[in-house]
Amino acid sequence: MFVQPVPTLCRDGDSLLILDQTALPWRREQCRLNTLDEVARAIRTMQVRGAPLIGNTAAMGVALALTRAGAEDEQLEHALTLLAATRPTAVNLHWALNRMAGILRPLPAPRRMAAAWDAAEAICADDAATCDAIGRHGLALLRGLPARSGRPLRVMTHCNAGWLATLGAGTALAPVYAAQAAGIDIEVIASETRPRNQGLLTAWELREAGVPHMLIADNAAGHLLMHGEADVVITGADRIAANGDSANKIGTLLKALAARAAGIPFYIAAPYSTLDFGSPDGAAIPIEDRGADEVCSSIGVDARDEAISLRIAPAGTRAANPAFDVTPASLITGIITERGVIAPAALSATYAERQE
Amino acid sequence: MFVQPVPTLCRDGDSLLILDQTALPWRREQCRLNTLDEVARAIRTMQVRGAPLIGNTAAMGVALALTRAGAEDEQLEHALTLLAATRPTAVNLHWALNRMAGILRPLPAPRRMAAAWDAAEAICADDAATCDAIGRHGLALLRGLPARSGRPLRVMTHCNAGWLATLGAGTALAPVYAAQAAGIDIEVIASETRPRNQGLLTAWELREAGVPHMLIADNAAGHLLMHGEADVVITGADRIAANGDSANKIGTLLKALAARAAGIPFYIAAPYSTLDFGSPDGAAIPIEDRGADEVCSSIGVDARDEAISLRIAPAGTRAANPAFDVTPASLITGIITERGVIAPAALSATYAERQE
Repeated sequence: MFVQPVPTLCRDGDSLLILDQTALPWRREQCRLNTLDEVARAIRTMQVRGAPLIGNTAAMGVALALTRAGAEDEQLEHALTLLAATRPTAVNLHWALNRMAGILRPLPAPRRMAAAWDAAEAICADDAATCDAIGRHGLALLRGLPARSGRPLRVMTHCNAGWLATLGAGTALAPVYAAQAAGIDIEVIASETRPRNQGLLTAWELREAGVPHMLIADNAAGHLLMHGEADVVITGADRIAANGDSANKIGTLLKALAARAAGIPFYIAAPYSTLDFGSPDGAAIPIEDRGADEVCSSIGVDARDEAISLRIAPAGTRAANPAFDVTPASLITGIITERGVIAPAALSATYAERQE
Repeated sequence: MFVQPVPTLCRDGDSLLILDQTALPWRREQCRLNTLDEVARAIRTMQVRGAPLIGNTAAMGVALALTRAGAEDEQLEHALTLLAATRPTAVNLHWALNRMAGILRPLPAPRRMAAAWDAAEAICADDAATCDAIGRHGLALLRGLPARSGRPLRVMTHCNAGWLATLGAGTALAPVYAAQAAGIDIEVIASETRPRNQGLLTAWELREAGVPHMLIADNAAGHLLMHGEADVVITGADRIAANGDSANKIGTLLKALAARAAGIPFYIAAPYSTLDFGSPDGAAIPIEDRGADEVCSSIGVDARDEAISLRIAPAGTRAANPAFDVTPASLITGIITERGVIAPAALSATYAERQE
């Protein structure tokens, strides 16, 4: 069982403690969330981020809301609606809220508060176990890659889908931590992931966990893959359509195209809850646009202990800023879930099995 | 004839005046170069940048060196060697220096100084005329693109290959300026181009020239191309091999892969001097690695009138930082040169013609 070097989210009495990811990699800072609005804002502003962690936080947020504001239908529905509107692309958010709603709606109000904490904590515990299972299946896959000589096994990833994005070992990085635990000489190529630079979070979490890594500009991925500098690409996903098309952080598609051109396998690692059988294909997945400021400003910087944001483009510069893109199933070698590695074309069959 | 809003390079008596591109987009600052070493440093640190402008500056640098230090063989060869070593990938640099050497070596030393200024100024004048010709050929190509409805013609570019990179209208952006002059409703999608953010230079120069544009994170290119948000991709090149494989700023390859996947034409625009028939294919082109600092630091920022560089990754973070990648000829629709638009496979034939 992977133990997080710093807990990303935990309950502390009637409030939540989160590791504030907007302060990383400069400051390791916990932040206390006391109200439903604070939880919603933490998700919206990406103080907590990563599809699984968003789901966990939302579930805990429902419990917190009922504790603070009362557990009548009105408060419950308000919490569910507010939290569902925080981020549009990650489906784990809706999955977690649906699971909470399914448990809480049938209960009488006086029994909801305790049940909400129990349900939220079960969702969180499931997430950690899911990460470990993804790690096991991914490790088997890494062991099967062709042998290299003269350098470690190299995994290229995008954005951050490690322990910071979950309550366990992560998704895309779970196989890396499993390989580290198994004594495999492994190294991660972390892509900067503009405009929000989540690659720096990946570099930070790998350093905390003692895994060798190197940082690259997103632009360098094609060159490095074409030159055989990575053995496999593994990313997370925010939503996977029924046909296997997968939405993930903007730029994932470019890595998948380059991996295909270079003949290097490209995997998505995600909990089964990321599958959205309500979306027949990628075109049905809503893509969040986060506005021009993220593109026109550089990242926050810890100067004199204040995180500051610096403009890098003149005021009024227009920008397009889609936060996710869709990698077509045809470019995906396999999807690593807690149930095993599934070929994109076989997803529908697993859904049919689940329904039986 | 396109007139630069601000001159990128000009002779001022026995020294050179350059627009300092490391101060852009925050300050419009001219910088005087008085010695050969200052010219070499300006190229190495990218105060002047862009393959054609590097060639122009190096040619002027030879003339400046002979003026300052004397025009004997020793001084001439020292200047040629020092300038050739400043940047490894751009072949225009070597082309310009070879042209200078071919003219100056046969001359007696007393005649070299005047001849060097004449030759350098001829190279600069040729560059401006070349840009205009590229603009004309590119304009014909833009006119031939399928009609859109409800939005301007959109050209996606990468890095900066506009007027800032030349002594004229630019290479990749020359067709855009020609279209603007022809009254065509046109818009540019400028890609940030990490790690050195030359996309901000593109946004700045387009603003100076009054061309509508929007800035994107490099990661967004795949999503936008797949959704038909651009009609054509045009980039510059630093070196084109005999088979059409083209080296250009890191990340160009990813755009070419995405354009192919989206069925959108991908063009290289470059002077004929960018062709290197000594390199049979892309594997023969040396790729500059510019070290970890550019990836681990954010861009310089104009705070209290000082350009500062801020670390965005912990000290000691390893990085890979190839400055260029090679786009295979198979992904290139055509190469826009001053001689017309050439299919990559037809390059060798044009070389044979040139030799006859």
